[in-house]
Amino acid sequence: MHERETIESAEVLAIGTEMLLGELVDTNTAWISRRLAALGVGIYRHTTVGDNLGRIAAALQEAASRADLVITTGGLGPTSDDLTNEALARATGRRMVEYAEAREHVERKFREFGRKPSPSNYKQALFPEGTTLIPNPLGTAMGALLESDGTLFATLPGVPQEMRGMFEETLVPLIRERSEGAIVSRTLWFVGLGESALAERVQDLLDAENPTVAPLAGQGKVRLRITARAATPEEAEGQIEPVAREILSRLGRYYFGEDEETLESVVGRLLTEKGRTLALAESCTGGLLAKRLTDIPGSSRYFKEGLVTYSNEAKERLLGVPRELLVRYGAVSEEVARAMAEGVRRLAGSDYGLSVTGIAGPEGGTPEKPVGLVWVGLADAGGTRAEKLNLTAWSRSREAIRERSASGAFDLLRRRLEGKI
Amino acid sequence: MHERETIESAEVLAIGTEMLLGELVDTNTAWISRRLAALGVGIYRHTTVGDNLGRIAAALQEAASRADLVITTGGLGPTSDDLTNEALARATGRRMVEYAEAREHVERKFREFGRKPSPSNYKQALFPEGTTLIPNPLGTAMGALLESDGTLFATLPGVPQEMRGMFEETLVPLIRERSEGAIVSRTLWFVGLGESALAERVQDLLDAENPTVAPLAGQGKVRLRITARAATPEEAEGQIEPVAREILSRLGRYYFGEDEETLESVVGRLLTEKGRTLALAESCTGGLLAKRLTDIPGSSRYFKEGLVTYSNEAKERLLGVPRELLVRYGAVSEEVARAMAEGVRRLAGSDYGLSVTGIAGPEGGTPEKPVGLVWVGLADAGGTRAEKLNLTAWSRSREAIRERSASGAFDLLRRRLEGKI
Repeated sequence: MHERETIESAEVLAIGTEMLLGELVDTNTAWISRRLAALGVGIYRHTTVGDNLGRIAAALQEAASRADLVITTGGLGPTSDDLTNEALARATGRRMVEYAEAREHVERKFREFGRKPSPSNYKQALFPEGTTLIPNPLGTAMGALLESDGTLFATLPGVPQEMRGMFEETLVPLIRERSEGAIVSRTLWFVGLGESALAERVQDLLDAENPTVAPLAGQGKVRLRITARAATPEEAEGQIEPVAREILSRLGRYYFGEDEETLESVVGRLLTEKGRTLALAESCTGGLLAKRLTDIPGSSRYFKEGLVTYSNEAKERLLGVPRELLVRYGAVSEEVARAMAEGVRRLAGSDYGLSVTGIAGPEGGTPEKPVGLVWVGLADAGGTRAEKLNLTAWSRSREAIRERSASGAFDLLRRRLEGKI
Repeated sequence: MHERETIESAEVLAIGTEMLLGELVDTNTAWISRRLAALGVGIYRHTTVGDNLGRIAAALQEAASRADLVITTGGLGPTSDDLTNEALARATGRRMVEYAEAREHVERKFREFGRKPSPSNYKQALFPEGTTLIPNPLGTAMGALLESDGTLFATLPGVPQEMRGMFEETLVPLIRERSEGAIVSRTLWFVGLGESALAERVQDLLDAENPTVAPLAGQGKVRLRITARAATPEEAEGQIEPVAREILSRLGRYYFGEDEETLESVVGRLLTEKGRTLALAESCTGGLLAKRLTDIPGSSRYFKEGLVTYSNEAKERLLGVPRELLVRYGAVSEEVARAMAEGVRRLAGSDYGLSVTGIAGPEGGTPEKPVGLVWVGLADAGGTRAEKLNLTAWSRSREAIRERSASGAFDLLRRRLEGKI
């Protein structure tokens, strides 16, 4: 690469007929976009096209007319449907040539898997002339870096793990080197208040130019992203710090973590730090609480066991919830949430017992106990507490109610572990 | 709408800066695309742009230059960032006018929620002149249908439930009416063999023109979609039938359902039909099995309870797995999978006990028991059986191993319920 233009803007192009037909939801584009935004690169458009040479080439040219950097994912495999590098050659008026390094890479990868490449696999050694290869330690598909008319093209595979590694190893250093100054972002996560209530409390900060503060919402959690632009990363960090402090002075009681943290990862970290253990008793979430907790590698350190007691009979028999409570108050009640938490704590011999009982719908609601009524309970050595979550308004899907119920339960435990309640 | 062009091709335009920055993964576009494909409409491009008037208008014009139908999602809210209808007015050279029907709709919806609209909410009553309104029974945002220069534009909200209802109620009849003839699709689902192995067995059918047969892969399951084009839906169905029969004669033992069915919905249907009950004992899936089973409304009819026994101690105490087995064979073994299934069946008094134990990683693997080694077990009145799943090759993420483990367990139960084993 001889031209060395600054990279200020980028577009992402996802390639694959399965995505176009909706058979596969593309998560690569969102991932790349988050990384680009964190690096301070502006993103103005995403495009998806199918496995068609002419349409890929046209989309590449259009993107190049608008952006400094065009990143593609998909279409680097060995089959006749994999056309990305050939389309890049057409879009930039180059011919395809074989790269010995890529040919050796294909052969080496096949040896590692104990197989022999078929002739079609050598297609993955062909790239537009003038390409710089992007190493792929995990798979056979190397990527191409190609500068043409002031636009830098990068082709990455569709397999998320391979794509991510190649982006981090090769593209991130390149983007940093060709960015003017440094951009640093920090995301603060909040729970227990809505996006508009949050925005109102920091309205004055949302109008600032540098650092910028932007609210983002999703699945019952809200975020504020602080982004600073400065000559060095350290200087940008220094600009973020007082803004973060100001935000936390106003909204600290709703704050639970930053950047890649989740409620369950924060709970896991706190349990690990304190050497405490947890057991779960779930009704309406039906295993989602345990699933989210065990999404985290190493959760066996603090997670003892989880009981999905869907029926009243199971609540009684396994957790020892008194039949009288079930009859008098019903399964979805403060009393039963408390008894479930106490029961699972006793059964597991854990430090904490956390419970959820509610009506996830779409059926099963009544005027007194509508769909979206959920109780969460927490038992520990200091006693038992329960909280009511009201998820009836604006969020009526079974999935949304279950996800928010799980978040509400984890948040109750988080506040307890942090000594806030 | 006075012009009545045939709808053969469509593009989908997702609008929202949060998607562009990767803060929100867009699932609407994939859903719309699947529906359009099933209706026989060709899709050649997806585009995502941010909340910027000029960029949305440009993307609308570009899409219109290529497609008969342009569907947008997002940007129909009441805030200053919601610009879709205004951009449509700019792209088609119309002015924005207030629609009394939309104004009344906003007021009615606010009354339903017991609130009063603020002045900004009346923005949702403004549409490009000449618009036909798309009713939205669930929310305040109505959509716009607008014909301009041979392209039909449809604007839909970003809230999935609202968008889906409006698509089904208003767009589907319109597309059917303006399609030439009928297109009918049927998707057949298979489990237990790979995409390429499946494709090899039906290679001759994949080359056919009408009905077409296309293989699709994802998350350990493979699909074949049969699509027929004919003068009437009945005629198209009649063309699909013999192709489906031919495919099932070759691949019947791997077939588990069609169209929107999943392994867990098939298992749920079979359990309901037979009046049988199920209990679950999970180790490495950590609640995912129970979560997937209870994703289905009404699963309380057949699901008794689920136990997430992450520790050996819990396997012993709750499920009665003999310590001797855990010591001699280890937690990830045929013997322990069998004992877990038997234990949970006994504990719950259910007809079936289904278990999973394995190594989901990323840590915890050994040369003898690598990450991806998983045993599933099934106990019923006829005895106990276990199967080994080997998920080591090519699929090493914790999430992929857990999802495929759950599918492997449900598939074991499915085959038993169908009398195949």
